[in-house]
Amino acid sequence: MRDSTRKICVVVTARPSYSRIKSALKAIKEHPGLELQLVIAGSALLDRYGNAVDFIEKDGFSIAAKVFMVLEGENPTTMAKTTGIGVLELTNVFYNLKPDAVVTIADRFETIATSIAAAYQNIPLVHVQGGEVTGSIDEKVRHANTKLADIHLVSSEDARERVVKLGENPEKVINTGCPSIDLAREIAGEKELLFDPFEKYGGVGAKFDWKKGYIVVMQHPVTTEYKDAKKHILETLHAIKKLDYPTFWFWPNVDAGSDGTSNGIRSFRELENPQNMHFFKNMEPLDFLRLLKNSKALVGNSSAGLRECSYLGTPVINIGIRQNRRLRWQNVKDVPSDCQKIIEETKKAIENGYFDKSDIYGNGNAGNKIANILAETELSFSKTITY
Amino acid sequence: MRDSTRKICVVVTARPSYSRIKSALKAIKEHPGLELQLVIAGSALLDRYGNAVDFIEKDGFSIAAKVFMVLEGENPTTMAKTTGIGVLELTNVFYNLKPDAVVTIADRFETIATSIAAAYQNIPLVHVQGGEVTGSIDEKVRHANTKLADIHLVSSEDARERVVKLGENPEKVINTGCPSIDLAREIAGEKELLFDPFEKYGGVGAKFDWKKGYIVVMQHPVTTEYKDAKKHILETLHAIKKLDYPTFWFWPNVDAGSDGTSNGIRSFRELENPQNMHFFKNMEPLDFLRLLKNSKALVGNSSAGLRECSYLGTPVINIGIRQNRRLRWQNVKDVPSDCQKIIEETKKAIENGYFDKSDIYGNGNAGNKIANILAETELSFSKTITY
Amino acid sequence: MRDSTRKICVVVTARPSYSRIKSALKAIKEHPGLELQLVIAGSALLDRYGNAVDFIEKDGFSIAAKVFMVLEGENPTTMAKTTGIGVLELTNVFYNLKPDAVVTIADRFETIATSIAAAYQNIPLVHVQGGEVTGSIDEKVRHANTKLADIHLVSSEDARERVVKLGENPEKVINTGCPSIDLAREIAGEKELLFDPFEKYGGVGAKFDWKKGYIVVMQHPVTTEYKDAKKHILETLHAIKKLDYPTFWFWPNVDAGSDGTSNGIRSFRELENPQNMHFFKNMEPLDFLRLLKNSKALVGNSSAGLRECSYLGTPVINIGIRQNRRLRWQNVKDVPSDCQKIIEETKKAIENGYFDKSDIYGNGNAGNKIANILAETELSFSKTITY
Amino acid sequence: MRDSTRKICVVVTARPSYSRIKSALKAIKEHPGLELQLVIAGSALLDRYGNAVDFIEKDGFSIAAKVFMVLEGENPTTMAKTTGIGVLELTNVFYNLKPDAVVTIADRFETIATSIAAAYQNIPLVHVQGGEVTGSIDEKVRHANTKLADIHLVSSEDARERVVKLGENPEKVINTGCPSIDLAREIAGEKELLFDPFEKYGGVGAKFDWKKGYIVVMQHPVTTEYKDAKKHILETLHAIKKLDYPTFWFWPNVDAGSDGTSNGIRSFRELENPQNMHFFKNMEPLDFLRLLKNSKALVGNSSAGLRECSYLGTPVINIGIRQNRRLRWQNVKDVPSDCQKIIEETKKAIENGYFDKSDIYGNGNAGNKIANILAETELSFSKTITY
Repeated sequence: MRDSTRKICVVVTARPSYSRIKSALKAIKEHPGLELQLVIAGSALLDRYGNAVDFIEKDGFSIAAKVFMVLEGENPTTMAKTTGIGVLELTNVFYNLKPDAVVTIADRFETIATSIAAAYQNIPLVHVQGGEVTGSIDEKVRHANTKLADIHLVSSEDARERVVKLGENPEKVINTGCPSIDLAREIAGEKELLFDPFEKYGGVGAKFDWKKGYIVVMQHPVTTEYKDAKKHILETLHAIKKLDYPTFWFWPNVDAGSDGTSNGIRSFRELENPQNMHFFKNMEPLDFLRLLKNSKALVGNSSAGLRECSYLGTPVINIGIRQNRRLRWQNVKDVPSDCQKIIEETKKAIENGYFDKSDIYGNGNAGNKIANILAETELSFSKTITY
Repeated sequence: MRDSTRKICVVVTARPSYSRIKSALKAIKEHPGLELQLVIAGSALLDRYGNAVDFIEKDGFSIAAKVFMVLEGENPTTMAKTTGIGVLELTNVFYNLKPDAVVTIADRFETIATSIAAAYQNIPLVHVQGGEVTGSIDEKVRHANTKLADIHLVSSEDARERVVKLGENPEKVINTGCPSIDLAREIAGEKELLFDPFEKYGGVGAKFDWKKGYIVVMQHPVTTEYKDAKKHILETLHAIKKLDYPTFWFWPNVDAGSDGTSNGIRSFRELENPQNMHFFKNMEPLDFLRLLKNSKALVGNSSAGLRECSYLGTPVINIGIRQNRRLRWQNVKDVPSDCQKIIEETKKAIENGYFDKSDIYGNGNAGNKIANILAETELSFSKTITY
Repeated sequence: MRDSTRKICVVVTARPSYSRIKSALKAIKEHPGLELQLVIAGSALLDRYGNAVDFIEKDGFSIAAKVFMVLEGENPTTMAKTTGIGVLELTNVFYNLKPDAVVTIADRFETIATSIAAAYQNIPLVHVQGGEVTGSIDEKVRHANTKLADIHLVSSEDARERVVKLGENPEKVINTGCPSIDLAREIAGEKELLFDPFEKYGGVGAKFDWKKGYIVVMQHPVTTEYKDAKKHILETLHAIKKLDYPTFWFWPNVDAGSDGTSNGIRSFRELENPQNMHFFKNMEPLDFLRLLKNSKALVGNSSAGLRECSYLGTPVINIGIRQNRRLRWQNVKDVPSDCQKIIEETKKAIENGYFDKSDIYGNGNAGNKIANILAETELSFSKTITY
Repeated sequence: MRDSTRKICVVVTARPSYSRIKSALKAIKEHPGLELQLVIAGSALLDRYGNAVDFIEKDGFSIAAKVFMVLEGENPTTMAKTTGIGVLELTNVFYNLKPDAVVTIADRFETIATSIAAAYQNIPLVHVQGGEVTGSIDEKVRHANTKLADIHLVSSEDARERVVKLGENPEKVINTGCPSIDLAREIAGEKELLFDPFEKYGGVGAKFDWKKGYIVVMQHPVTTEYKDAKKHILETLHAIKKLDYPTFWFWPNVDAGSDGTSNGIRSFRELENPQNMHFFKNMEPLDFLRLLKNSKALVGNSSAGLRECSYLGTPVINIGIRQNRRLRWQNVKDVPSDCQKIIEETKKAIENGYFDKSDIYGNGNAGNKIANILAETELSFSKTITY
């Protein structure tokens, strides 16, 4: 029997990671055997990318430490240096917080900083959402995180099998489903959009009547092709303008190339003054899912298209190589970064309507499963490859 | 046809890594299609661990950049921070040197800094000596390096198969043999020790007649058990004292626990004043191999015991879990960290004499193979797992 | 007699610092006894603030090293961390470049990184533009730079006296005048603006006929009041809108609060769509001076108002405390951050016209003086306060 | 009236700084209007230099955060980088602790990290022990700290006048005396040494009868002459050996050159096996003062010779330029780093005996004065030079 609660330190380094882990944070916080140490770092702290701190505190979480670590430049060099600063600072944070386990999330470039800071300090490391397959630097980072982690809480059977193939002890690899599906499940029963996006979130750009139908665009730069970020976003911008359908558009994450993407959007707006697009920086996670659920389609390369939309049944036009071979449901249509193709497939998607929902990424109970495992599993920081 | 030479940046972060890569450095330097950019960093710059710069320059290499990055403390926290500093600084070095490929060596904790600095900047990353199996943090670091690297130049068939199982493209995984065997081959024909270690390397401690037989001890702390470092080294110290056989002893690498190891040695010397031990900080790589070749046995947990000694045929008493499941030849006898067991097995080894040599780690031509591959192979920085 | 040229490393960390040192860079480059090692770092590398590298290379300088070091957030915490990263990285750069002296410029927060990296490494440190008086964190940084520096090349008699009072050896404190005046002198004879700002620099916002008269606005946040940055810029924006006079407006430097300033400008543009304002990120130094020379007034809190405009005779409406007690000529009218006051004084300035030019900041030969001193003066790195 | 206690963050970066501030820490901790946030960083955390944490916790203080930041190498390059890491990390610590004021101590190279981390974040900065005069990099650092600080609590009238001359507001410059004298006062009445140094502190080297008289040696490297560190320490070692008088010797601080100093001591011991010297790494502050009070002389270049010994009346042989022009009492005899001179003057000192005590560095009540000022003074973070 343990005589004390386990301290679980979760590091959130970006706005989207918060949505992806929120239900687990809640379950950890409420579990009698666990104490949550929430660290907010990286772009999650920056107004420019939609400061997540307000949302997080409004959701009732208290923050154990904040770490500014994003170096300006949005290029591969600053991504690497940001990671170095993250290692340095997160090490110090863990050293002073003394957690019993650290949770690192998914595959953003800076998540390896969390992994190193924990693994090197002999703190058991839990990796959430490993084992998936994509392109870009994420692919390298995700599997490196797997090799640094001691416990793997994956989101799908496909991912579970892949992590085991990577030489991890099968007992330490558990398919909990994806916590982001937990949020999707919360709002899956709502029949219509009950808030007005313009009113609640401001944003910039044209206003339009979204009640008769709208689409959502979310497109990030691909880090291994970051110099093409502006070209890629312009293909999509021109496509959506020609489509002339009401569109809510989200600014990109901080990544190599996000300056190119933002720049592309900014200059397009200045030159073309598009009347069917409205731009948001950020939205509360549940509202974002409500927006997706009620949209005619999601266009871009966000992993939400493969993940949450599989559960919501929303059609997805997935552009380019960013999601590569990540597990997908029949709601996803892959297209290259090509204006004409994007137009065609988005049109079809709007016409064909919703898909049956799938539970390939879980059935909406991942948060509780994760908390229970963190409370019960044996924690160790030493492992050897299985072959 | 390429119209220019390829710039190959090799990062050496520790004294033993230099020996391990030296023949490849020479081959790269001499290859008409390659330009060597040699970066010396970490403990390789520190007098305390035997500054490698003098050896390196004496060997005819010029150094493109030096990077101090080792944080004092020799504990897991400073290991992690050292790595963070390494990421930050090496990123800047690569950014300014603009290499066509970066080479990261083996599995020391700070080698992941090289890997991240290259991979995140979209510079093709070559990992040398991946695919092996050990215990300790090295195990995590080595396989994480594999997942960050684009090309894998491994030292044995065993390692090649393992890297392929890790989901790497088999065409990018090549068994070159280990460059450290190239050095062993250079001196393998020498019949006796032609230099006097006392004269050439000074050191501290007792002096004795080594010509009638001696052993070598090299024992590093195990990072996942770093708090036991002093206890472990004392078992060995007492064993060797009781054995009362002439012994050349090497100070440990900089690692979590090396303070404990050094401390143990220092206090043992102060209290026990052992008359059969002489201590060295450092030795030129070839001389170290000569010393090994002519010794009755190597005691400790150095990877040289498994690697170079397999080629030299020197008996090895391998203590504890540090080398865990690393590929070994019949010259290696594993023992726990236990004074009595160490005495027994070392005695037997001295009596039984040399073993047949093996080429499990290559036949001594790894450096040239590596240089040729670096000159000819397609360099890319994007990959996806094979399953 | 010296047998070799002296290597002079100049670190430029921001776009405006480049203009301020350019004539000295040229003189150093051309001096037979000197070799220029130009390091470009910080916001001078960032597109967002107008990447200075293109200008610099176009001006014929080659860059010895580039250092990304600006942490995102534009708040006091990220300013401090940026400085820490700067110390770490610039130390490494100097260590590898081995300069005979390092030049640090003026008083931006990150210039102390240059000072520490040089002073701690026993490299003689030359501080340009010390001894002035302002408000804000600049005030602390400037005098701290003075106390770390060995040689002081100041821009005015007033500054020279102050540095001597600070306990520096009078022989090491020399009034060279300000190199920025050298540039002003180059274009002082031109009678009219010979380029079209819209055509040559693009920018965003309204277009207007500037040939009949225009003003220039350049207002930075005050770091000790950074939370008021948005409020302050809005006072000026409203004033200039009401004034309804053609206006070229420059985005702020990267500093604590610059997010607030940029934000204020962006939301003002979105809401008010001002028809008399055009916005630029950056301009080549000489063109910027041409723009100032031909403008009816400079409004804001840029030091160019006190410095270059004293030589050009352009009227200046200097807002708030940022320039505090810095030496000024009669062309400068100080006003608080108050919409009405700004309108009134700007109107008067437009009506009253140009002032006689002054040489309080030098007569336009600073660059050559600086180069000659760097070539001839004794270089040392040890000093003691004079009282 | 304030409605809450003020949080005072004190950063201790080295063992000797702790002794120097201890009485103030105690007074802050006990003051009803103050809350102490104690940060331990740098070499104060390292076993190699005598980990201060045990002493500090034994003294009843709890530690708010620990920061490893010392880069190995003990050379000017690693000193500078250590400072950069310190800025980065301490900024984060202050950001999360949110103190009302930060206290930086004296003039060690890394103290400027504390100053920058506080000043740049607009946290009122209190500098203790400014205004003194020495040689070496300390001289630059101390006065730079003064220019970054808002409140100056100095140790002597001489220092107070100098800080005012440096352009600081006289109301913000207060002579509290030196807190190290508070400790000296605590033990000043004790007639003899009541503990056995060998028994209580172990150490290494010869044992002797100290009851009939002994001297103490403490000699640090001079950072601006760090390459001569070994030469300098050897002069002293040979002098003390020839003197053949019982000697307690302390290892040096971590500084550029301390490797040279330690090395010199180590090789001297190995070669010469001196029978009149015993070596300690560390001693509890009060015991160290007891040792000084009862010694016949202090030899070396420690500031304790000028400071605490002026109050205790112990004769001091002050070697070389490290203390340069620091305020001294008649008990101090300055000598160059010369074996013969050191022997002569130490002999004379032993013969001549104790001096009258002085209160040039205060009368032993500095801690309380400091706490009261921190509780009552107006705290601001903006200032302008007075001339």
